[in-house]
Amino acid sequence: MSRERLTLFDTTLRDGAQTTGVDFSIEDKLQIAAMLDRLGVDYVEGGYPGANPLDTSFFEQKRTRNARFTAFGMTKRAGRSATNDPGVAALLEADCDTVCFVAKSWDYHVHVALGCTLEENLEGIRDSIAAARSAGREAMLDCEHFFDGYKANPTYALACARTAYEAGARWIVLCDTNGGTLPDEVERIVAEVAAHIPGEHLGIHAHDDTGNAVANSLAAVRAGARQIQGTLNGLGERCGNANLATLIPTLKLKPGYAERFVIGVTDEGLATLTQVSRALDELLNRAPNRHAPYVGPSAFATKAGIHASAVLKDPRTYEHVPPETVGNHRVVLVSTQAGKSNVLAELERLGIDVHRDDPRIARLLEEVKEREAMGYAYEGADASFFLLAKRVLGEVPEFFTIERFKVNVERRYNAVGDLVTFSEATVKVKVAGETLISAAEGNGPVNALDLALRKDLGKYQRFIEDMELLDYKVRIFQGGSDAVTRVLIESGDGQGERWTTVGVSANIIDASFQALTDSISYRLLKCGAEG
Amino acid sequence: MSRERLTLFDTTLRDGAQTTGVDFSIEDKLQIAAMLDRLGVDYVEGGYPGANPLDTSFFEQKRTRNARFTAFGMTKRAGRSATNDPGVAALLEADCDTVCFVAKSWDYHVHVALGCTLEENLEGIRDSIAAARSAGREAMLDCEHFFDGYKANPTYALACARTAYEAGARWIVLCDTNGGTLPDEVERIVAEVAAHIPGEHLGIHAHDDTGNAVANSLAAVRAGARQIQGTLNGLGERCGNANLATLIPTLKLKPGYAERFVIGVTDEGLATLTQVSRALDELLNRAPNRHAPYVGPSAFATKAGIHASAVLKDPRTYEHVPPETVGNHRVVLVSTQAGKSNVLAELERLGIDVHRDDPRIARLLEEVKEREAMGYAYEGADASFFLLAKRVLGEVPEFFTIERFKVNVERRYNAVGDLVTFSEATVKVKVAGETLISAAEGNGPVNALDLALRKDLGKYQRFIEDMELLDYKVRIFQGGSDAVTRVLIESGDGQGERWTTVGVSANIIDASFQALTDSISYRLLKCGAEG
Repeated sequence: MSRERLTLFDTTLRDGAQTTGVDFSIEDKLQIAAMLDRLGVDYVEGGYPGANPLDTSFFEQKRTRNARFTAFGMTKRAGRSATNDPGVAALLEADCDTVCFVAKSWDYHVHVALGCTLEENLEGIRDSIAAARSAGREAMLDCEHFFDGYKANPTYALACARTAYEAGARWIVLCDTNGGTLPDEVERIVAEVAAHIPGEHLGIHAHDDTGNAVANSLAAVRAGARQIQGTLNGLGERCGNANLATLIPTLKLKPGYAERFVIGVTDEGLATLTQVSRALDELLNRAPNRHAPYVGPSAFATKAGIHASAVLKDPRTYEHVPPETVGNHRVVLVSTQAGKSNVLAELERLGIDVHRDDPRIARLLEEVKEREAMGYAYEGADASFFLLAKRVLGEVPEFFTIERFKVNVERRYNAVGDLVTFSEATVKVKVAGETLISAAEGNGPVNALDLALRKDLGKYQRFIEDMELLDYKVRIFQGGSDAVTRVLIESGDGQGERWTTVGVSANIIDASFQALTDSISYRLLKCGAEG
Repeated sequence: MSRERLTLFDTTLRDGAQTTGVDFSIEDKLQIAAMLDRLGVDYVEGGYPGANPLDTSFFEQKRTRNARFTAFGMTKRAGRSATNDPGVAALLEADCDTVCFVAKSWDYHVHVALGCTLEENLEGIRDSIAAARSAGREAMLDCEHFFDGYKANPTYALACARTAYEAGARWIVLCDTNGGTLPDEVERIVAEVAAHIPGEHLGIHAHDDTGNAVANSLAAVRAGARQIQGTLNGLGERCGNANLATLIPTLKLKPGYAERFVIGVTDEGLATLTQVSRALDELLNRAPNRHAPYVGPSAFATKAGIHASAVLKDPRTYEHVPPETVGNHRVVLVSTQAGKSNVLAELERLGIDVHRDDPRIARLLEEVKEREAMGYAYEGADASFFLLAKRVLGEVPEFFTIERFKVNVERRYNAVGDLVTFSEATVKVKVAGETLISAAEGNGPVNALDLALRKDLGKYQRFIEDMELLDYKVRIFQGGSDAVTRVLIESGDGQGERWTTVGVSANIIDASFQALTDSISYRLLKCGAEG
């Protein structure tokens, strides 16, 4: 039995632009459009040409190769023809395959927000769709607030949808604009609409205001809809749009959907999903959602000792899908609840060879628990855990000892009367019996300290020459009576190798210094430097 | 028509303890149990006595007043009686109202994980439930991996559930332990089970691995189940448990559920939900999920200019429920997409009186956009926005000017040979024509700077005497070629007044200093200090 085609419509660059704290630059939009195109979504809604200069220039050329490049905008305003409507004109000027119009489909809105008649609104839909088709574009209609509109006045809501269909729209998208509709309601209403408009022309646009965006999308598909609109990582205003990074794996891996439908994302594409999701977060400087389904860092993380042994025996006992299918991996967390099997699994993953009955495993577990009580967190600081383990095993030579460090930040007037800030650090180390003292300036105290620390490490200098500080994260929390600062530093060697270390102290400079020295020690150890 | 009672079972303190990066202290557990009790959940599962010393001592006394205090643990192991099983014994020693046993209900697990026969597993269920009842406790059974177990061997899975029911369990909870079941499957399976065990004795325990924990919980209720298990803020391992902060408002505010069911949370309790959710995040030092349904800071936030004007006219045009019902509030965001109406709404909210046609509004909007391009973020830094607005309006006197500041952090050996870190700051300010220089030591550079800055501000000293630094957040991101540090500082006056300011620089000390001086200027302005 052949499978039906389900279409995925990505609106990350349009609806996703409404996310709190997100503002796409043109460069961002270009990169994201390319990512989405490669992933295999069928439509990329690039933005709203005419609404702002950035979007207008983004639509100067088509920005996707395979996905249909789509421009969003409003239907014509009442009282003018489509061709004389500046909004519609801007859409038709855009270099795109598809135009997605949005129109009111809730009579209340037509009165309150538009101030025109119900018939004028239908005319706006009809004429806009027709204008787009005359201009050689594929046309579709987003029916705004469809579900509330349908509950209030089903005849009118349906009339809006049918008007678009009869005018030749390829897709009529039923939008739960305020996100308040529940799955059983969506299923019922979509089924009723599908009795009038074929499901192959119906789409669903859900928001997560009741935590049901994904469920609403699936419910609409069960009721006959064949297009799902969403965003990568569930971006979008308020609680976000339906998360395509959550829907895509379900559609491809869960038999109830995978056996009935095929989507544009291939198995190879699916295996890049985690990386694509993280790349988007990085690009937008957003912390990834640890707990995101399928792609989150913790999606396949197991903590409790009992679970860990069962998982390691047979992952099917605890994992609903194999993590590799979505490009993720299993994590067996080292934490205060960790049992011996967790620690062993971590050591194995990091390539540290220890016999399972080695008594030092228990000591390592103790050390981890004690340090975590002080504020250390080894989840995400692999290099620090590696060092800790190696130290417990007695396999880390004393490469260098810190005699003293000093960091100075001063804001004062310079010679030309400007107030400027200077940061300077001095570090005194002992390397192979020799005392070395180095000073450096930086654009901040931690930068200065890092540069001073790595300026002259004697015999080890060549191993750390190409090191760079890639990322620096700070978290401050109450660990008792004093605030505790935890610093995570990600370092790199300029050739793709990256590692993360952690430092904890009441003093942010101290915490940073710990993470910096751990980073260097890790590097030296990995390079096989001799103590 | 009278409504049916739906029971809410909170497992934040038990399943929620598996969350990556979360470790409850006894003090945490006591506070959280009290919060949940006040909120109005029916059951509080406090932990796993016997599994670790902290949980065992937590169960030395009942820790709730209204909610049923519940202890979790495994059914007896094969080959011994319930009374001779140390796990069961620990449960029966616990001071609790209810014992919740967990048992395998997937035949595959009984073989692979337990290594006993299917019949021995049923005996374990029967005898454990009976033992709890004999000891005067209410008993319930969590059927682990129930949905996968039912799909693989429905007869056996049902037998596990029925055995518990026939042994007198008050609740039989069907657990989607690996979170992989979809809503339509949950609805079908629960309905089939409800043909054998009355729905008033059935519960659902869902996880969010496919983004459907909330939908699965609602689907189970539609199929007849009358208990929902979940956690506050969706805590839990991997992707978390069903989020009670998402479910409670839906059950109380959406007609499809509110007209059919009543829950233990009152309308007054519901209005505390946002505050309870945030309090839990604060207690655990977790950043609140901005986008969480109902209670997230952005749940009722609108950004785009067009939406803002419609919302301000009539919130029902865009809001699915009134934010006040859950203790949240509407936010009209000031951002680069902000239109004039957004800025006006913010000014009104902060109590700044400006005529809507004042040309300075446009200037303020420009300033905000420029600063946001540099890395400033005013969402969440009300006091800095207030100051910025007041400055554009020319209403902020120059209280003080900073001539110079210096911060020194030094780690060196002290007199007794210990390596210790010293932090010292010096600040030179000009106040009312007088130059004042102060020095202070602190437990870190920012603490030292804060103390030095507030040590002697001349004529303004009395206004800032009771100020304290409550919270300090740092975010580092790439704002072009140089990393940019954004610091948010929350200050208080020791009497409940709190305000947040922001600072941005490549230099973390600089950024902190900006936020600190803004905080003082804000305080002086609000206190009516004269320039």
